Amino acid sequence: MFFGSDNTGPAHPSVMAAMAEANTGFQPSYGDDALMERVRDQIRTLFEAPQASVYLVATGTAANALALATLSQPWQTVFCTPLAHIHTDECNAPEFFTGGAKLSLTGAADKMTPADLRAAIAEWPKGDVHVAQHGPLALTQATERGRIYSCEELAALTRVARDHGLPTYLDGARFANAVAALGCTPADMTWKAGIDAVSMGGTKNGCLGVEAVIFFNPENAWEFELRRKRSAHLFSKHRFLSAQMLEYLKDDLWLDLARTANARAATLVAGLRDLPEAGIVVEPEVNMIFATLPRATHQRLKAAGAAYGLYDGPLDNGPDDEPLMMRLVCDWSITEDHIATFLDLARG
Amino acid sequence: MFFGSDNTGPAHPSVMAAMAEANTGFQPSYGDDALMERVRDQIRTLFEAPQASVYLVATGTAANALALATLSQPWQTVFCTPLAHIHTDECNAPEFFTGGAKLSLTGAADKMTPADLRAAIAEWPKGDVHVAQHGPLALTQATERGRIYSCEELAALTRVARDHGLPTYLDGARFANAVAALGCTPADMTWKAGIDAVSMGGTKNGCLGVEAVIFFNPENAWEFELRRKRSAHLFSKHRFLSAQMLEYLKDDLWLDLARTANARAATLVAGLRDLPEAGIVVEPEVNMIFATLPRATHQRLKAAGAAYGLYDGPLDNGPDDEPLMMRLVCDWSITEDHIATFLDLARG
Amino acid sequence: MFFGSDNTGPAHPSVMAAMAEANTGFQPSYGDDALMERVRDQIRTLFEAPQASVYLVATGTAANALALATLSQPWQTVFCTPLAHIHTDECNAPEFFTGGAKLSLTGAADKMTPADLRAAIAEWPKGDVHVAQHGPLALTQATERGRIYSCEELAALTRVARDHGLPTYLDGARFANAVAALGCTPADMTWKAGIDAVSMGGTKNGCLGVEAVIFFNPENAWEFELRRKRSAHLFSKHRFLSAQMLEYLKDDLWLDLARTANARAATLVAGLRDLPEAGIVVEPEVNMIFATLPRATHQRLKAAGAAYGLYDGPLDNGPDDEPLMMRLVCDWSITEDHIATFLDLARG
Amino acid sequence: MFFGSDNTGPAHPSVMAAMAEANTGFQPSYGDDALMERVRDQIRTLFEAPQASVYLVATGTAANALALATLSQPWQTVFCTPLAHIHTDECNAPEFFTGGAKLSLTGAADKMTPADLRAAIAEWPKGDVHVAQHGPLALTQATERGRIYSCEELAALTRVARDHGLPTYLDGARFANAVAALGCTPADMTWKAGIDAVSMGGTKNGCLGVEAVIFFNPENAWEFELRRKRSAHLFSKHRFLSAQMLEYLKDDLWLDLARTANARAATLVAGLRDLPEAGIVVEPEVNMIFATLPRATHQRLKAAGAAYGLYDGPLDNGPDDEPLMMRLVCDWSITEDHIATFLDLARG
Repeated sequence: MFFGSDNTGPAHPSVMAAMAEANTGFQPSYGDDALMERVRDQIRTLFEAPQASVYLVATGTAANALALATLSQPWQTVFCTPLAHIHTDECNAPEFFTGGAKLSLTGAADKMTPADLRAAIAEWPKGDVHVAQHGPLALTQATERGRIYSCEELAALTRVARDHGLPTYLDGARFANAVAALGCTPADMTWKAGIDAVSMGGTKNGCLGVEAVIFFNPENAWEFELRRKRSAHLFSKHRFLSAQMLEYLKDDLWLDLARTANARAATLVAGLRDLPEAGIVVEPEVNMIFATLPRATHQRLKAAGAAYGLYDGPLDNGPDDEPLMMRLVCDWSITEDHIATFLDLARG
Repeated sequence: MFFGSDNTGPAHPSVMAAMAEANTGFQPSYGDDALMERVRDQIRTLFEAPQASVYLVATGTAANALALATLSQPWQTVFCTPLAHIHTDECNAPEFFTGGAKLSLTGAADKMTPADLRAAIAEWPKGDVHVAQHGPLALTQATERGRIYSCEELAALTRVARDHGLPTYLDGARFANAVAALGCTPADMTWKAGIDAVSMGGTKNGCLGVEAVIFFNPENAWEFELRRKRSAHLFSKHRFLSAQMLEYLKDDLWLDLARTANARAATLVAGLRDLPEAGIVVEPEVNMIFATLPRATHQRLKAAGAAYGLYDGPLDNGPDDEPLMMRLVCDWSITEDHIATFLDLARG
Repeated sequence: MFFGSDNTGPAHPSVMAAMAEANTGFQPSYGDDALMERVRDQIRTLFEAPQASVYLVATGTAANALALATLSQPWQTVFCTPLAHIHTDECNAPEFFTGGAKLSLTGAADKMTPADLRAAIAEWPKGDVHVAQHGPLALTQATERGRIYSCEELAALTRVARDHGLPTYLDGARFANAVAALGCTPADMTWKAGIDAVSMGGTKNGCLGVEAVIFFNPENAWEFELRRKRSAHLFSKHRFLSAQMLEYLKDDLWLDLARTANARAATLVAGLRDLPEAGIVVEPEVNMIFATLPRATHQRLKAAGAAYGLYDGPLDNGPDDEPLMMRLVCDWSITEDHIATFLDLARG
Repeated sequence: MFFGSDNTGPAHPSVMAAMAEANTGFQPSYGDDALMERVRDQIRTLFEAPQASVYLVATGTAANALALATLSQPWQTVFCTPLAHIHTDECNAPEFFTGGAKLSLTGAADKMTPADLRAAIAEWPKGDVHVAQHGPLALTQATERGRIYSCEELAALTRVARDHGLPTYLDGARFANAVAALGCTPADMTWKAGIDAVSMGGTKNGCLGVEAVIFFNPENAWEFELRRKRSAHLFSKHRFLSAQMLEYLKDDLWLDLARTANARAATLVAGLRDLPEAGIVVEPEVNMIFATLPRATHQRLKAAGAAYGLYDGPLDNGPDDEPLMMRLVCDWSITEDHIATFLDLARG
């Protein structure tokens, strides 16, 4: 029962098989491998973006920090939500990679509205040398609370950005889960909605460690390549990043795995809804659930070895019936059995 | 005939098999996996250093830049040779990770002597606020020209460093090749020779992408962990770094592969020595050869698909018999057949 | 009628005279001038801190950014209020000088309470490598809204900081105005209240451009000196910084000028209170006033050449009686006449 | 007898008088003062460059580091000589301000030739993501050894730079001394010779602390302004920088003072040439002399209070007649008497 994150599960067997298959003979290094050529082509096709620049890195933080650094200047501020991963979970990586840009926390929790964004931009008067200058808009899709922006919501936000000359970046660590939930195309959710650059995460969805970074404007390409090398994120045996991504793209594996993960979360939520003492904190839209259970229930679950994040506490001390918030994440490898066991335990 | 680098070959099959084996069930992420526990123990045993801090990253540049940043301050200068990888091949990664430290080029080509180091230190008067302050000594073993420092040479250099309060770092991208050539122990070549931190490369020697960074002084540990996360080099599915390294350490695979690579290079050098028109530029000590062949021979080799680095040029234009320098690198996967084919072609 | 800032007025004549007086003969450069020796001694005496390290820089932003960088690490977060000058008015200088530290906005507007600080610290769980680590507490005294912390309030805040191992910095751009208002000693308001480092501003209070930075812990001294040089803030003809500061300290000129400025503001506030249509937004405690006047009154004042900051707008368009917020600042050179003229105009 | 540097003397009395004169009434801050308007106009006229962007900062290191940062990217290398002030005397300020650019030491000692520059550029193959990319050419005029480039030499160097797409910066800490020595115009020595940006130093030549930074391409202007603010080098009471520069420009004071300084150095050199035991190390062209005297002579001079830099040593121990190199610098305030006294002492 590992619901702690979508990075504690294994890679999908076919991804691992593709790694083994790629492990023969010689290949040019540093991204000049033949597999990368195919990755590039397929991502361009998938995104209906024949001019896009496509790169692979091994971690989501690298994707975010490198993309934002490429789109910003050190004297600017990025606009992101208070719960944005780039703010809360990257140990100042964006500040490091950008050379000291600021993050302006915009909106409430994990989402922002056009009005929030306009207000945040207005905090920093344009053309005033004393203040942080306007930098990129950074959105996360699906969000850190397991919600999604509709394509219309994204378009409305990027329109505000465009009006102020801000480039836009979409942190797609759970890109596939969002596409699966929205039933839209990758193009719909990105450049057609005004997004300039996006990461398409593989690591949390069946890969070992690979994220694609896609710039729809090829002008950013060379700077990104230099930043990737300078930050030590250019792999010599790059074929092993390519092989993962290629398999991930093949026959829509990325989408199938995300659909599975989302479906598992839906099953789990449904089970929780049947528990009178459970409370759903955020209406789940992808593979992540924020819900409360009474302390005593948590004690029982944890004692039985269930792994998941507990936000409130302490676990050991307090009224048995006090509701404590948890985060449950399902990746593709979570089974119906795992869920049943968890719910049985929760039922007591 | 791929002699371009020791990063164009495949991973060793048993390393790949270990990856697949690790790909079952759930594992805590970000280095808390059970495999990493074993990696740590085994490296401490191998290095006879029970207190050492042990970390894994995926690229050699990350190992170098993170270790140097941990050992230095932004207002300092690192002392390294003019051909040090950190100076010539990392697109300013050390400058980026250190926050703007300088590299003082010390010695000639790929090696320095204690006298060189003393002279370089003397260039920057101690206690003068106007100048770059004394920072770490960074050595590469084996060097970028395929040579090695004896343990006594290392000890003499670190003694100078110690006299001036400089920490010492050993770039061990080809650590195994050097140990194999010297016939010493990892401890002999590191802390017993006065080295404070070392990288032990796996990528060039049979792994997919993994380097161990070892600090003999555990005081540096937490800062390194923060720097690794902040630079996006902490892997969520860390088990796949651990699994590589664990297999690499098992039954001295690391040493066997390095011995094979060194032996292949020795065969190749012997063959070149038999060619009257070939010139050995640097006496090879590990798996890397710097030698000259006439332009016409290069043309024949390149036409036949031989891959290797050519330093002089142009290939297409000039006297047929003009000697042009090349770099030939053998990794563990180079076979006697590859070498025979290459030499046959070179013989014409 | 220049109420725009306390940096638009002239230097006090005796400060300028001291500059001229210092302009004879030769003096060692870079802070080794004889005047600096005396500055150091006098500041140590004034602050009752015989071990303090004392430095001069020319701008308030330099004082803030250098002190914070000295007290922090790039992976940390500084705790400051949402209206802190370091956040709102320094174009990311703290982020630049610290190498990418974050600012966590704590409390409301220009002040924070111990509860605010505890809550802000709790946002970043200690020992978690993924999050920004706990860095310095930065307070401004007097604040950016013209208010002051009592010495007890300061002590309560630094106690929280100390409990969490945070160093504390006091931005004293208007240090003198705060001391004048509190009637305490410099020691009371700094190290006796738990402050580790403080800037004592001269620029806004009768000098041309000089700020003292004082570390009560001499361990920080050498790092500060290196940071000052590396950021190009070490003056070669340093005597001209020393001369300003020496005169500023002489016979409590710094305190007299601040008392004058505070008194002028008090006169101005009293006059505004007599205007039925004026609203005092923040109860003024030093030399800075945030108040509202109707749009029509602003139009009249601006047309007559009054200079001051207008926060709401637009000036030209809207109901005549809509209250718009302004900031009025008095430096020592504002006269009773200036104030009378301003109030006459405001009365209409 | 203060020959230690041209920053140990006083400001010229008329510059100080101009400071006092500027010290009346209110002036907009941060460079919006009326005096700055006039500085801008006069520098544009002086340089025959009506489009130039003109800024003032207070230190030479700030001028250099800000200009280079504006002209470069963090992954590039600056080309400068091994004795360039930016390399030897700024505690890594260029590395800090550029965000980690490298300095490639080009040529010998204080000067480089076009061949040197071409060779240095060739060290970093264009378009290779692994290496430092080509950044600005930085020259010092007059050089750190008291020599000058002719306008033709400058043009030949900038032609090489232009051929490789490198912007060019001239560190003019002793700009006036060079113009005085060459008898050319400021335009001849800058944009007409292919220079993109230049600093025109005032601090070493009669001012208190002011340097103009001039960009002939106004595209760089706004970025420079942001960098200046972000590095805390934008003065609030900017009028005191403007007033210095305005007086410095008035009636060619800058040129007169430089001529005086150069002439004093010429007198001093002539005197040294008459001493059989003195050796001129570098043929002096401006106000700086590198020469040797026997140890015993140095002992006599130092005992008598002469201040100057001694490069070899130790002073106290060694053969009396061993020649030790010194640096003697004359600023405008050095008198014929100072020189006569020094030479008398040297004669023994």
